[in-house]
Amino acid sequence: MRSSPEFELIAAIRDRLGSPAGGRLRVGIGDDAAVTVPGGATATTIDAVVDGVHFRRRDAPPEAIGRKALAAALSDLAAMGAEPGEAYVWLGRPEDLGRDEILAICDGLAAAAREAGVVVAGGDLTGSPVLALTVAAVGHADAPGSFVGRAGAQAGDAVCVTGALGGAAAGLMLLENPRLGEGLDPGLADGLRRRQLAPSPRLAAGRALAAGGASAMIDLSDGLGADCEHLAAASRVGVEIEMERVPLSPGVAELAAEAGRDRFELAVGGEDYELLCAVPRSRLAAATGGVEAAGGTLTEIGVAVDVPGVRLRLRGGRSLPVDGHDHLRR
Amino acid sequence: MRSSPEFELIAAIRDRLGSPAGGRLRVGIGDDAAVTVPGGATATTIDAVVDGVHFRRRDAPPEAIGRKALAAALSDLAAMGAEPGEAYVWLGRPEDLGRDEILAICDGLAAAAREAGVVVAGGDLTGSPVLALTVAAVGHADAPGSFVGRAGAQAGDAVCVTGALGGAAAGLMLLENPRLGEGLDPGLADGLRRRQLAPSPRLAAGRALAAGGASAMIDLSDGLGADCEHLAAASRVGVEIEMERVPLSPGVAELAAEAGRDRFELAVGGEDYELLCAVPRSRLAAATGGVEAAGGTLTEIGVAVDVPGVRLRLRGGRSLPVDGHDHLRR
Repeated sequence: MRSSPEFELIAAIRDRLGSPAGGRLRVGIGDDAAVTVPGGATATTIDAVVDGVHFRRRDAPPEAIGRKALAAALSDLAAMGAEPGEAYVWLGRPEDLGRDEILAICDGLAAAAREAGVVVAGGDLTGSPVLALTVAAVGHADAPGSFVGRAGAQAGDAVCVTGALGGAAAGLMLLENPRLGEGLDPGLADGLRRRQLAPSPRLAAGRALAAGGASAMIDLSDGLGADCEHLAAASRVGVEIEMERVPLSPGVAELAAEAGRDRFELAVGGEDYELLCAVPRSRLAAATGGVEAAGGTLTEIGVAVDVPGVRLRLRGGRSLPVDGHDHLRR
Repeated sequence: MRSSPEFELIAAIRDRLGSPAGGRLRVGIGDDAAVTVPGGATATTIDAVVDGVHFRRRDAPPEAIGRKALAAALSDLAAMGAEPGEAYVWLGRPEDLGRDEILAICDGLAAAAREAGVVVAGGDLTGSPVLALTVAAVGHADAPGSFVGRAGAQAGDAVCVTGALGGAAAGLMLLENPRLGEGLDPGLADGLRRRQLAPSPRLAAGRALAAGGASAMIDLSDGLGADCEHLAAASRVGVEIEMERVPLSPGVAELAAEAGRDRFELAVGGEDYELLCAVPRSRLAAATGGVEAAGGTLTEIGVAVDVPGVRLRLRGGRSLPVDGHDHLRR
């Protein structure tokens, strides 16, 4: 973090984001690097959100930008079944991004970190022509085998999702087309926009699925089709999804009808940050119960099969294309 | 990493950057997160380089961009005295950044990682209006107390630098003003440009200084004055530097003379990525010997004092201002 005129700003950022040493954290924000004592095994990921690609400053309140940046990284940890640990944040600051906006972004980061049980242990602030945040996140487990990867699904395993899909894509439609959604209940419309702007990582559900015997897991960031492909390829299986079984977020079906689109297209749209997993049939009841005990829901939507490839089946023998439209631009 | 048309590119990137599991690394690039078994203690940092701020695409070969991104993060680990471990890279890709340029950036990352003994364990590639790389780096030690922080310098400690300073600032002058440097030996001019474009993190020297008893350490990224201030503030001491004792990179004095600038201004210019440290006098010979055994040099350039603040003394009682000009823009 740079030169003297910025000292006051850096201090204000530290006030919002810093944590006292404690638990695994021995030295937090303020040195060249944070010092931790991990123990067991760690899962580490890096993710970024960029203005114009993953959000638009004109649509997204600054708190939501901070929340989304952290959520995107923590969702990867959720998909490993990791216990959340530490986050490291880079903020690229355009010249027109003022102090208040920066601190509001930090408030969003801090709130999301608190909710997730994550410590912001380090960061960097530099100039940048475009507002961007990168978050590296570290999660923990007692041993490497406690994490759940993408490989491990076997033919016959149930394929399941947490929560409901389509909300983030519907929220993006509402943000991009303000005249849409006039027939929607305003509370529902707000909920959909929030799914796009400030998603919640499914950390508790991820840990429950790891403990409950999920054989493979991935978070739904790229879209149901693309993420099924990632899981199928890593596990060397195929995946058949019955789209009619996919739970849709409230308001998605109504908005799709208003826009003249198939509601299931929105469910493959990406950025819902729910978890997709494979679960051996013998563990399905236990896994479902574990997710419910963690405050979530788990729905069986398909099956892993021997035939490679991913099929997103609709009623009547049709299938959806697997490539969702996950971002404002690619 | 995103949708199907990019699969081939992602595979080519993995070929360049990926490492097989081994040692601490249990799962590398390709899952939601990398899995490691750290043992002991970790030091973790995040740093970024952005086109127009830390480099310019028109000046910097793509390999150098990859090298600089990794060096900036690893330099923080060097300043902790950490054993290098894993790096996680985000690449923000503008639409006009082609496949070959991306792979050349990865070649630079891979070469710098190999030289440093670092494994690239994860990454992310997304669209971005501007070319930017963020690197999170994790280093290791047997225990948290083995790392050297910024706090710990005591009045009376010698203040030392590794290597020589001013090369990065001189290299930036050459890149920004192609008519400068005509009187310089071309090999020297190339060396100066390389100090700016593709610095080397001082990992071996940092480990030697941690083992040799350095009481506080920081890397020289912001500039000698600003980084002395960081170390002084964290250690609650003052720092007096005798600029005449600061070793200058070959060619710096000649270029400063040609440009009509004080050569020591270039030495406070930042981005040299050498290490600044405080060493108790009783350990100075051992620390110096340790750095030399690691292939580097250590020079005493000043002293930690009771009076707060940083003074960069020139001959004749004058002082340099402490705020270096560290980047193309702030």
